[in-house]
Amino acid sequence: MEISENKLINRIKKFEDKSSNVLRGIGDDGAVIKLSQGSYVLVQDAMVEHVHFKFSFVDPYNVGKKAVYVNISDTLSMGALPLYFLVTIGITPALTSKDITRLYSGMRQAAREFGAIMIGGDTTESKNDFFIDISMIGKLITRTYLGRDKAREGDLIAVTGPLGESAFGLSLFLEGRPIKGMSRFAKRYASPKPPYVVWKEIVKHDITRSMMDISDGLLIDLGRMMTESRKGAVIHLERLPIPPLLRKENKEILALSGGEDYQLLFTFPRSKLEKVQRIIARGHPISTIGEVIRGKGVKVLSRGNTYEAPVKGYEHFGDSR
Amino acid sequence: MEISENKLINRIKKFEDKSSNVLRGIGDDGAVIKLSQGSYVLVQDAMVEHVHFKFSFVDPYNVGKKAVYVNISDTLSMGALPLYFLVTIGITPALTSKDITRLYSGMRQAAREFGAIMIGGDTTESKNDFFIDISMIGKLITRTYLGRDKAREGDLIAVTGPLGESAFGLSLFLEGRPIKGMSRFAKRYASPKPPYVVWKEIVKHDITRSMMDISDGLLIDLGRMMTESRKGAVIHLERLPIPPLLRKENKEILALSGGEDYQLLFTFPRSKLEKVQRIIARGHPISTIGEVIRGKGVKVLSRGNTYEAPVKGYEHFGDSR
Repeated sequence: MEISENKLINRIKKFEDKSSNVLRGIGDDGAVIKLSQGSYVLVQDAMVEHVHFKFSFVDPYNVGKKAVYVNISDTLSMGALPLYFLVTIGITPALTSKDITRLYSGMRQAAREFGAIMIGGDTTESKNDFFIDISMIGKLITRTYLGRDKAREGDLIAVTGPLGESAFGLSLFLEGRPIKGMSRFAKRYASPKPPYVVWKEIVKHDITRSMMDISDGLLIDLGRMMTESRKGAVIHLERLPIPPLLRKENKEILALSGGEDYQLLFTFPRSKLEKVQRIIARGHPISTIGEVIRGKGVKVLSRGNTYEAPVKGYEHFGDSR
Repeated sequence: MEISENKLINRIKKFEDKSSNVLRGIGDDGAVIKLSQGSYVLVQDAMVEHVHFKFSFVDPYNVGKKAVYVNISDTLSMGALPLYFLVTIGITPALTSKDITRLYSGMRQAAREFGAIMIGGDTTESKNDFFIDISMIGKLITRTYLGRDKAREGDLIAVTGPLGESAFGLSLFLEGRPIKGMSRFAKRYASPKPPYVVWKEIVKHDITRSMMDISDGLLIDLGRMMTESRKGAVIHLERLPIPPLLRKENKEILALSGGEDYQLLFTFPRSKLEKVQRIIARGHPISTIGEVIRGKGVKVLSRGNTYEAPVKGYEHFGDSR
């Protein structure tokens, strides 16, 4: 960084959208907002260079977009509409002020798609690892929050779109394959936009009990939901929305264990199946992939037989599952 | 880290205090809280290893405490009472799960002193630089927020306690001097508790217009307040609350440019001077150090003569002031 902290903050201020409910935004010890009475969702999610991404694969603009998207994804999956967010960045010496401008530009673009407004945060140095950490507040619009702990026995399990796209996109970068004709996968990896339109349908029609976003892979995340709900799950490999190209290249496993799709995973009572089918008939991409059972763990069936996935998904730190 | 992410999160959950207004805490995509109508302050502040601290000077317990304190400091200085916070940590391979437990133990200790409750966050890897980033929400209890932009011409300028203590504490570590008999300074550096008692007096008696915490040094921070308020300031070196030991060692400059004291800097109209003097008479450590004038910048007088500080304070990134 070749400019001072004061200058940087002045530059960042230009990316702040206005709202009459923001009494004080960027440039003070904290932001001040007016809130009505109600239930609010607070999320916080970070992306770290060398761990979550490399700048050689994803440019600062898309890193900014993705950092906002993953927080919007968490907010939506609890049943809330995003309102405001704060951003901390740890800037390494390798980054220029232009990189930072592109980063904030990406953040603003992603936030505007969902009506969220940046109101503050922190800028600091980091010696080796760039990081971006966003906290977001949203207002709950569902009757009760949509948690991981609300799945019930007999619920059907569904997802909001194709699985494995992001992991396949990452593999293109890792293998140095041409992106041409595959930009859909590269984009899902570099800036996974949450499935807002179908989320609104699900929420409007009061479909779901339990919901979460798929960040570490279907098997791990569904496993977490079942653990929190004290239930088990059975899913059917044939019903997973796997892009044809992944089947062709024998990479179906990415639909089970590939991370960062940021599709929504949810359960709903059988009594709502007709409603769900009507939503699907209107062109919304929902796939019913299995059901919640008594017991624990996630069982995958392929043509009725138990399928053992060779890789479960992505977890940070020592793997002692 | 020798344990899995799931196990780590289960361990972190044990540090969560309960509240009936927290509908969902740690362990989901987001936390859910009930809020009454009103104005809220949102802050977010990070500490990065090798930049803000070294583990050789500050142990994980105090890093945790300090990370919470600096966010409470920001919340108080806007005029709000801290309520809830979320924590992101980027864990390097060098840290053990015991270190992380100590870190969260320090956070909980600091938070309990102010009634704040941890409700969520994120745990991730970081390859080289450990970082901790906290976001906090507090409820505004002053009539209007206490911002950096509210100082008016003729206001008196005051601080809530000794200046330079933290920087002197850091110098003890850097120079390898014995801490014995100097633990007050080491402690102010390692875990600077915000001046809550005097803050409550100031807020209760509706004293202040403009307020901020001193994190980068009096000169830089007062300069920022004056810039935001479009005013200038004159302060008197003799009136600064400088610990006698700093004078003895010719380190008065630390009171002007030493960072991380986390004392509160505020301005108030002359009409409130009597009220302030009554608060001081009751034993609260407030020092009136100067006044707000027309113009810009910060002028330091020593026995009536202009004093040029050789160092202004601490700023991240390229120094182009």
